[in-house]
Amino acid sequence: MMRDYPSRGGKGIRGSFCLLWCDLFGGNRGDALNTATALELFQNWILIHDDIEDESDLRRGQPALHKKYGTPLSINAGDALHGKMWELLTTNQSMIGSDLTLSILSEFCLMLNGTTEGQHMELSWTLGSKWDISESDYLLMVTKKAAWYTCISPSRMGVILSTAENKRNDLMEGGLLGRLVDVGTNLGIAFQIVDDILNLTASEEKYGKEILGDLFEGKRTLMLIHLLENCGESKRGKIISTLSKHREEKRTSEVQEIFKLMETTGSVEYGRTVAEKFHSKSITEFDAIAREYGFRNSATFGTTRLLMEYLAKRDY
Amino acid sequence: MMRDYPSRGGKGIRGSFCLLWCDLFGGNRGDALNTATALELFQNWILIHDDIEDESDLRRGQPALHKKYGTPLSINAGDALHGKMWELLTTNQSMIGSDLTLSILSEFCLMLNGTTEGQHMELSWTLGSKWDISESDYLLMVTKKAAWYTCISPSRMGVILSTAENKRNDLMEGGLLGRLVDVGTNLGIAFQIVDDILNLTASEEKYGKEILGDLFEGKRTLMLIHLLENCGESKRGKIISTLSKHREEKRTSEVQEIFKLMETTGSVEYGRTVAEKFHSKSITEFDAIAREYGFRNSATFGTTRLLMEYLAKRDY
Repeated sequence: MMRDYPSRGGKGIRGSFCLLWCDLFGGNRGDALNTATALELFQNWILIHDDIEDESDLRRGQPALHKKYGTPLSINAGDALHGKMWELLTTNQSMIGSDLTLSILSEFCLMLNGTTEGQHMELSWTLGSKWDISESDYLLMVTKKAAWYTCISPSRMGVILSTAENKRNDLMEGGLLGRLVDVGTNLGIAFQIVDDILNLTASEEKYGKEILGDLFEGKRTLMLIHLLENCGESKRGKIISTLSKHREEKRTSEVQEIFKLMETTGSVEYGRTVAEKFHSKSITEFDAIAREYGFRNSATFGTTRLLMEYLAKRDY
Repeated sequence: MMRDYPSRGGKGIRGSFCLLWCDLFGGNRGDALNTATALELFQNWILIHDDIEDESDLRRGQPALHKKYGTPLSINAGDALHGKMWELLTTNQSMIGSDLTLSILSEFCLMLNGTTEGQHMELSWTLGSKWDISESDYLLMVTKKAAWYTCISPSRMGVILSTAENKRNDLMEGGLLGRLVDVGTNLGIAFQIVDDILNLTASEEKYGKEILGDLFEGKRTLMLIHLLENCGESKRGKIISTLSKHREEKRTSEVQEIFKLMETTGSVEYGRTVAEKFHSKSITEFDAIAREYGFRNSATFGTTRLLMEYLAKRDY
């Protein structure tokens, strides 16, 4: 059960960012390999639990783990895989020494705090039937829930690990780690909005999850917030009453109706515009860091830039 | 939600063992305080998840967390508290140094591996309708599920932490940590059997959990295994068919009937005898270690001995 999600593949975004950022700052990718793997384990165990919490049916084109083995064994398998993540991180010691190993462990703690806080916010909205969510509530939730573990933490860990090789302690002082919070927040927000748009518009085969699943779950996305703020009072009431039903009681036709309203109200287009805005802020700041730290012309700069573009321009 | 279980109280057994063993070997209890607290956090977050997995109604005399807040938020709160446990453990660094901090982290990984493996075994038996469980299957499951985190790991961690003060590196060499696996396995098995007996016979008010709850859950205890092996073929079939029902479908009268059969078949008495056997093995080995390491006459020896007695002779 622990091998199930990892062996289904996945994009490997978090691990790749960690390796790339280590490389950008003159580190040895080998020093970051354990940590990059642990980031992927993080993504996998937390998805096991998320899929239960969100009652998701599909993950990476196959039934979610709890659909195959039931909830009790799946919660436990998630915990066991979570344990393997920390175990792998403690084995960093022989490779990068005790102090760096502990710095990385602390980064994982920060990341897990953010992720669980964000997940708590989102679940509370859904389970507490809360509909008066503002755009800034949404951005805070997404920063915590997605940006930290997808973008911020992987980049910070990569930079910390680069110091194993080159002992550039100055990297830890000039505010660089704080700037990576900005780069990663902006990129992570763009990533999540695009993910939510794909949930509405992608092909199920490529995307690997149920299309319109977020509407069946009643998930508060930027597009839904935009729709509720711009559709007028009477439609607003109707949309909320449909989305408040339990997922089994929602008819496909009424859910598709809400999606169509999103298109006619310009909510999907609005989502794309906001994602693009955050994405360019992220790229601008990344380019500035690249100039300051002198890796603007490296091959890894180009690869990292491509991955950043992909996050906001992908179709799956 | 993270503060809920910890603030309900609890016996504090795991943390106490850690502090006591540190003290027995000449360590400073203050050096073990973080780790002892983290052991209690471990107990609390894993109970949140266990209560969901076992569909328990009560914990420490109050509704289980998922009964108050629902399953999704409770899984997530368990994960968040799990994260706080590792965070606390990384803060050991400033007190006991990086290397000992990492040794303790590795012990936590061992402990979590054992606990999740044991939980997987037990859940698989219940969910997979497996009834041909032997006594040795049971002992292996209980060693993994209960003995590691209740007895083995806390004692090992206490001894490891004692070296922060006295630099007795010889402690790590003479096979002591291996002998603590024996002491803790025997004590932990006794502890769990007694816990399972209390589930049958205690007063609900003192015990804080539903009496006969294990029979409603269909939990494979030593007493049940003894009953199934000694009650004869026809009763065996009837018991299994009752226990195989979903908990809501079980009538209290038929569950009480099984408990009465346990008493008349001598299964409860058998449980007490086996618990007593493992308990004395544990005490004998503990006394031998006390003589060899010269703490037989210390006050802490007496306290530890009392706690060990309590584990097997308690009425709640």
